[in-house]
Amino acid sequence: MEPQGAKIVVMGGGTGSFSLLNGLKHYTSNLTALVNMVDDGGSTGTLRDELGVLPPGDARQCLVALSRSPKVRDLFNYRFEEGSLKGHSFGNLFLTALEKLTGSFAEGLETAAEVLQVVGHVVPATLDNVRLKMSWPDQQVVLTGERVIDVEHFSHDPRQATLSLIPEAQANPAALAAIHAADIVVIAPGDLYTSLGPILVAEGYKEALTATKAKVAYVCNLVTKKGQTDGFMAQDHAAEIERFVGAPIIDVLLYNQGQPSADLLEKYAKQGEYWVEADDSQLAKMHYRAISGDFLAHQVPVAAKAYDPLAAHRTLIRHDTDKVARALMKLYFE
Amino acid sequence: MEPQGAKIVVMGGGTGSFSLLNGLKHYTSNLTALVNMVDDGGSTGTLRDELGVLPPGDARQCLVALSRSPKVRDLFNYRFEEGSLKGHSFGNLFLTALEKLTGSFAEGLETAAEVLQVVGHVVPATLDNVRLKMSWPDQQVVLTGERVIDVEHFSHDPRQATLSLIPEAQANPAALAAIHAADIVVIAPGDLYTSLGPILVAEGYKEALTATKAKVAYVCNLVTKKGQTDGFMAQDHAAEIERFVGAPIIDVLLYNQGQPSADLLEKYAKQGEYWVEADDSQLAKMHYRAISGDFLAHQVPVAAKAYDPLAAHRTLIRHDTDKVARALMKLYFE
Repeated sequence: MEPQGAKIVVMGGGTGSFSLLNGLKHYTSNLTALVNMVDDGGSTGTLRDELGVLPPGDARQCLVALSRSPKVRDLFNYRFEEGSLKGHSFGNLFLTALEKLTGSFAEGLETAAEVLQVVGHVVPATLDNVRLKMSWPDQQVVLTGERVIDVEHFSHDPRQATLSLIPEAQANPAALAAIHAADIVVIAPGDLYTSLGPILVAEGYKEALTATKAKVAYVCNLVTKKGQTDGFMAQDHAAEIERFVGAPIIDVLLYNQGQPSADLLEKYAKQGEYWVEADDSQLAKMHYRAISGDFLAHQVPVAAKAYDPLAAHRTLIRHDTDKVARALMKLYFE
Repeated sequence: MEPQGAKIVVMGGGTGSFSLLNGLKHYTSNLTALVNMVDDGGSTGTLRDELGVLPPGDARQCLVALSRSPKVRDLFNYRFEEGSLKGHSFGNLFLTALEKLTGSFAEGLETAAEVLQVVGHVVPATLDNVRLKMSWPDQQVVLTGERVIDVEHFSHDPRQATLSLIPEAQANPAALAAIHAADIVVIAPGDLYTSLGPILVAEGYKEALTATKAKVAYVCNLVTKKGQTDGFMAQDHAAEIERFVGAPIIDVLLYNQGQPSADLLEKYAKQGEYWVEADDSQLAKMHYRAISGDFLAHQVPVAAKAYDPLAAHRTLIRHDTDKVARALMKLYFE
């Protein structure tokens, strides 16, 4: 059977995109998860270092988010707790073995998708073996490696920095083809410098995102990231996205106007994280359409904890992925 | 769909039983592979030691032999070659993760069987966590551990030794139920002291094999094992099997009369391995029926090397598994 429904590509690779995939899969079976390939920490980092494979971690989580089989989902997220396997998630070993066996990460992903009974496709943003680099003018500061950058509190304005892949990487042709064919391309909420940027700076995305007839929608983050996006408003996030791409590719910005409780805001503030604000009058002047809504999950559904392996990792200010999915689907039906 | 065809149980756990399962699966989908649980070497040994799981290795190979999916078969037998995963076969990690996740080796096997699209069932001979022990009267010699015993050249007659499981183990009730319901129970060719014996000495097999209405057929080995079964004829092998069980349970002995070439025999003799001979007049006096035939594979079909992961491990004197499978099926149809 050919996949049915709206052709939606979700770009990302962190929790934000896994949740969004979870939400969208109820409305279309024609989903493509486009994942960044710069992870180099934890189990993934060990496998890359020891076996020279491409990073399985984010692809694994996309597979899990799109799987129909609860049993296999649990298995894929299972993490060994003792011995020489300690810290490895089973799904990472699965993807690694498949890559070694088939000689191709992408082909391994296809086999894994079959086994996991996945709705749609998981497509690596690039097939090149790359590391992430972030450098400021005159090489004042050079940061190398996704995990290094992820935990860094930047001493200089990140908007002055160049984000790049080492070595220079080409977009995966399958990813470009999916963008070309899509009805909607979603840039998922996620870390700007370690999740979204690492996809968008690869060679080929500028052309594809400019040429596609798809609506390109960016779902803005709910909170700032300490030491990285402090003080960023919604349009600042969008501006960075477009700076990575090198062209004004956003058609729609989805941003939240639901109010977290004062308690929650205070709790976040203590950790240096703040609600992302938006200035409607500013947004009205942008080349993209800004659509606001109450996209907050005001409570964690108890059921979600049982079926959603991500629930436990969620912070308490987070998207109601069904609300976001519905807003995106609305774009398809206008 | 309920499984169809002759209900056949194959007891064993080494190459002999994997090949036989490969042969039999073409004639019935109602197969049960009953595997010994004493392996403690290699990847399996490491996983047992580090994670306290039951031994996945032989069960894995039975699953592979019974799988319909060539892709997943390759994956299950894939062995990591570098880093901290070196030496682990992927299938072992798969079964280990499933046991950890479900808390039960048997339940993990069922899930793996689903994923691998397995014909029939793989059933552990016991669910107890045991090690193999072989001891001679007055404790003159005591050998502990399957891998230790496997490579030992016995200094005393093994027919005087007691083979046991430490601690004493109960047969898996599912294994006994399969024997009870079977049309044919096959004791596969395999190492007497490290493959077949370790199943048969567990508590419960004597009663089950005595009570079952199934025909119990023992497929005798083709060559002796150096330092262990030197000089054993066909009936000596059968006698040891029944000594392990503690009762005359064999209904049919299948033994080979095909002649390997002089070259091959010489090659084996240099390694201390000899063709198992049979004395027809002796066999005629036994309580079991002895059926002979040319059960030798006179050439390795080229095609087999492509689809059969075991082909590379086979010695050159080996069973033609289709001929053996046909002889066993004939018992069902008499």
